[in-house]
Amino acid sequence: MTIDDPVTRAEVEAAFAAYEAALVGNDVAALDGFFWRDARALRYGTGENLYGHAAIAAFRAARPATGLGRDLDGTVITTFGRDFATASTLFRRDGAPGRVGRQTQSWARLPEGWRIVAAHVSVIDAPA
Amino acid sequence: MTIDDPVTRAEVEAAFAAYEAALVGNDVAALDGFFWRDARALRYGTGENLYGHAAIAAFRAARPATGLGRDLDGTVITTFGRDFATASTLFRRDGAPGRVGRQTQSWARLPEGWRIVAAHVSVIDAPA
Repeated sequence: MTIDDPVTRAEVEAAFAAYEAALVGNDVAALDGFFWRDARALRYGTGENLYGHAAIAAFRAARPATGLGRDLDGTVITTFGRDFATASTLFRRDGAPGRVGRQTQSWARLPEGWRIVAAHVSVIDAPA
Repeated sequence: MTIDDPVTRAEVEAAFAAYEAALVGNDVAALDGFFWRDARALRYGTGENLYGHAAIAAFRAARPATGLGRDLDGTVITTFGRDFATASTLFRRDGAPGRVGRQTQSWARLPEGWRIVAAHVSVIDAPA
């Protein structure tokens, strides 16, 4: 298995950046499109545990569209073979000093394109 | 790409169960062995952000060995092709009523065997 094949990495980096733009811009249709449209898709959010694409989409539709801007730090994208990748990053928001968010995603290249098949977001006090 | 090939799934389910046993038993050597021995391995824990196998191992070595028992719920393991899987689960501890943990792992089949290449653990108030 080739790890961090440059072509595959570039694809996932582009998908990750497009997801981030959709998130900050609250482009709900785009966000829904990035997630695997399957009951096995999963997203653990900052205060909710969402099982299945329908639950994830319902959450997005109800989310307040303000205060979404954030700065990323410590981003690591690693690809395994040509069809799988992990993308992890820290994030900080101006409105939450002293706190740090963590976002991890598993991406798979499916027939329909690169999709997030599992994601986990949490916020903690910034470690000393 | 075959999703949830039965043979691959059985392998990852066994690895996931062995990891859980090592975690609850605080078998630090086994836990270290499950993680990809690479600077790109990553584990966001309940209060720390660990980059690289060395940081993960140092954290394990220093962790208190009590109160590790937990009950799993909502576990979803999904395999993508023969060499990649995601494993997600909720967990609860008797000592933390009203709180729910979330653990997500990305597993890859490397030449040395199935390894966790990225993990994220967080605890939140149990959603209503």
